[in-house]
Amino acid sequence: MEHPPTAEATESHYFINNPPPKSLKSNVTLAREFIDRHAEIGRRVVLVTSGGTTVPLETQTVRYIDNFSAGTRGATSAEYFLQEGYAVIFLHRQFSLLPYSRHYSHNTRSFLDFMKEENGRVVVDEQHQEEMLRVLRQYTEAKRENKLLILSFVTITEYLWELREVAKLMQPLGPKALFYLAAAVSDFFVPHDRMVEHKIQSSEEFSQTNGNNGNSSGKPPAARTEGRSLVIDLEPVPKFLKQLVDGWAPEGMIVSFKLETDPSMLVRKAQYSLEKYAHHLVIGNLLMTRKWEVVFVSTMEGEKWIRVPRNRRTKSISGIESWVGRAAGANADSAEPARAELSSPQGEPIVEIESLIIPEISEMHTKLIAQAQEDKTLQKS
Amino acid sequence: MEHPPTAEATESHYFINNPPPKSLKSNVTLAREFIDRHAEIGRRVVLVTSGGTTVPLETQTVRYIDNFSAGTRGATSAEYFLQEGYAVIFLHRQFSLLPYSRHYSHNTRSFLDFMKEENGRVVVDEQHQEEMLRVLRQYTEAKRENKLLILSFVTITEYLWELREVAKLMQPLGPKALFYLAAAVSDFFVPHDRMVEHKIQSSEEFSQTNGNNGNSSGKPPAARTEGRSLVIDLEPVPKFLKQLVDGWAPEGMIVSFKLETDPSMLVRKAQYSLEKYAHHLVIGNLLMTRKWEVVFVSTMEGEKWIRVPRNRRTKSISGIESWVGRAAGANADSAEPARAELSSPQGEPIVEIESLIIPEISEMHTKLIAQAQEDKTLQKS
Repeated sequence: MEHPPTAEATESHYFINNPPPKSLKSNVTLAREFIDRHAEIGRRVVLVTSGGTTVPLETQTVRYIDNFSAGTRGATSAEYFLQEGYAVIFLHRQFSLLPYSRHYSHNTRSFLDFMKEENGRVVVDEQHQEEMLRVLRQYTEAKRENKLLILSFVTITEYLWELREVAKLMQPLGPKALFYLAAAVSDFFVPHDRMVEHKIQSSEEFSQTNGNNGNSSGKPPAARTEGRSLVIDLEPVPKFLKQLVDGWAPEGMIVSFKLETDPSMLVRKAQYSLEKYAHHLVIGNLLMTRKWEVVFVSTMEGEKWIRVPRNRRTKSISGIESWVGRAAGANADSAEPARAELSSPQGEPIVEIESLIIPEISEMHTKLIAQAQEDKTLQKS
Repeated sequence: MEHPPTAEATESHYFINNPPPKSLKSNVTLAREFIDRHAEIGRRVVLVTSGGTTVPLETQTVRYIDNFSAGTRGATSAEYFLQEGYAVIFLHRQFSLLPYSRHYSHNTRSFLDFMKEENGRVVVDEQHQEEMLRVLRQYTEAKRENKLLILSFVTITEYLWELREVAKLMQPLGPKALFYLAAAVSDFFVPHDRMVEHKIQSSEEFSQTNGNNGNSSGKPPAARTEGRSLVIDLEPVPKFLKQLVDGWAPEGMIVSFKLETDPSMLVRKAQYSLEKYAHHLVIGNLLMTRKWEVVFVSTMEGEKWIRVPRNRRTKSISGIESWVGRAAGANADSAEPARAELSSPQGEPIVEIESLIIPEISEMHTKLIAQAQEDKTLQKS
């Protein structure tokens, strides 16, 4: 009988066959220095992953599969982690939102719309001075105290290489390491040896050349034209969360995200994930309500909904506010008293849900660190 | 014998089955007003398309196929068209580069890195004042003179709807309309009636539900799990360039782009495209050298290479400079004398290739407008 390959075999197969990004070495150097500095003074360090990973269809990439994410969750969370005193490694998709500058980018307006000429100099206009000064001060402080390290990835393979190397570097932090995996990571990919070199041709007149510029492995290319269609078959990305929990970061607290679109599946899938990987916390969220509610699923606290009060919710053109509560089943009503809306004054400032999420996680992290220290003391005595 | 459907039938089938974006109506209103204003004073108007179109795999989109493009070509070209006196409709992929602000976005640095606090106010730091003032002035002028209209798309269907409607609105401009199609447009797509509603499940434990949340058309979904794999089969996007040339913009000048990765295919494919669509100009470019050389293929002027002199080339981490000339075959040497490098002084300012491309196009456009007026006079007499 043939046994499925072990997790270790799967890992080494993946990393041998999908080569590391060129920037890995310099990123590792930066990360090591950053982590060592904060480990030395006993500061907590969080690795925040953010944005979507891509799956290129060609080596010289013209087409790729992407995962929907502007990086809002990650960039916003990074700011609140800094507020909570964490040092933050922000591993994000290139050109996705960054902490602090997110307030002024990926906007329908150009940042030049915030500027004006005054006596031959460029200054921020009056209307935006106050807000930008607040943001700039926070950003400058994070930089001055060396509390924010920004790294980037594009492809799923780049992401996995960086995640693995940084996680290993974080081992000396022990339980003070936190992993906040908000990136939208591909579940399926094209292995390096099934990638064609050149752009896949669409005109039938040219498609015969596809066979010639294929890969050298002898395996069928993952993306190919069949008649007038393009057929892509993708292989599953190995479930490296298991590896992270068991091998790369055995002592750290690990928080993963589960994004769904179907309300009826959300809690079930979050619970499934928690059982499968046995890590600390799964944060479930629906595409349509993710700015207003999330569900924490953990062994420590079971199922727990976190919601922004109705009158403090940010507007979102892509969301559907009436869906809030849909995925909660019996927990919907108790979690959000109907009277809240009536009793709260209108016009109060918007609350970002990450400002509620991060302090909760920080508290759980405190408990886990205390527990780890207790365990250590017990072992010693 | 069954005849292939006519171009008109293909067009109406596509636009009936793939519904318009919500923003179409308001965009059409903006575009009509913009075009009418400039048509009235006889100004040339160019539609610049820019950035990549996406092909969503689910209606509630978590995964999609994308086309590689930061929007650099389009955003840069738009600035030079404005310099040439054109009014510019900039139809771009949401969050891709914009004219003017491109100088400060999609950078490894946050724009906040250009700012500093001075007497409790946020100002641009000294080092970046001069450059930003120049850019801000150009941007402000374009806005003040209402010469720049910014519209956006995300999906291939949104792009095609906007292209068709704006092109039709531009008909009153006659030969003074120019189409500069720099967007990276999908060749393959998932028709609306083959799209699943919800996120495709990767775990085998949940994949049985995929059948239930499928589309209602009875057609097999374009993306589906088969065992542990994800299989996507995409249909070809109808070749609407034909429609644009023949029906939507019969009098305008039309410039299309051809991006290839294989040097041996570039010129051949550009020529093929020109013959097939019978429009005015195909600009061929290679992924690896696109910032330094392009080839114009047109009936008016045949094959013509445009290159930035070696010592004026911008650095590009993604490009391979030694590939310049590879796609030109016999034309490589004559187009770029080897002595140019020796005789030119070093350290001169970088030249953006779009600063060479746009004036060339503007000149061709002048000739075409003159020719159209002659034809008209001849018809009248």
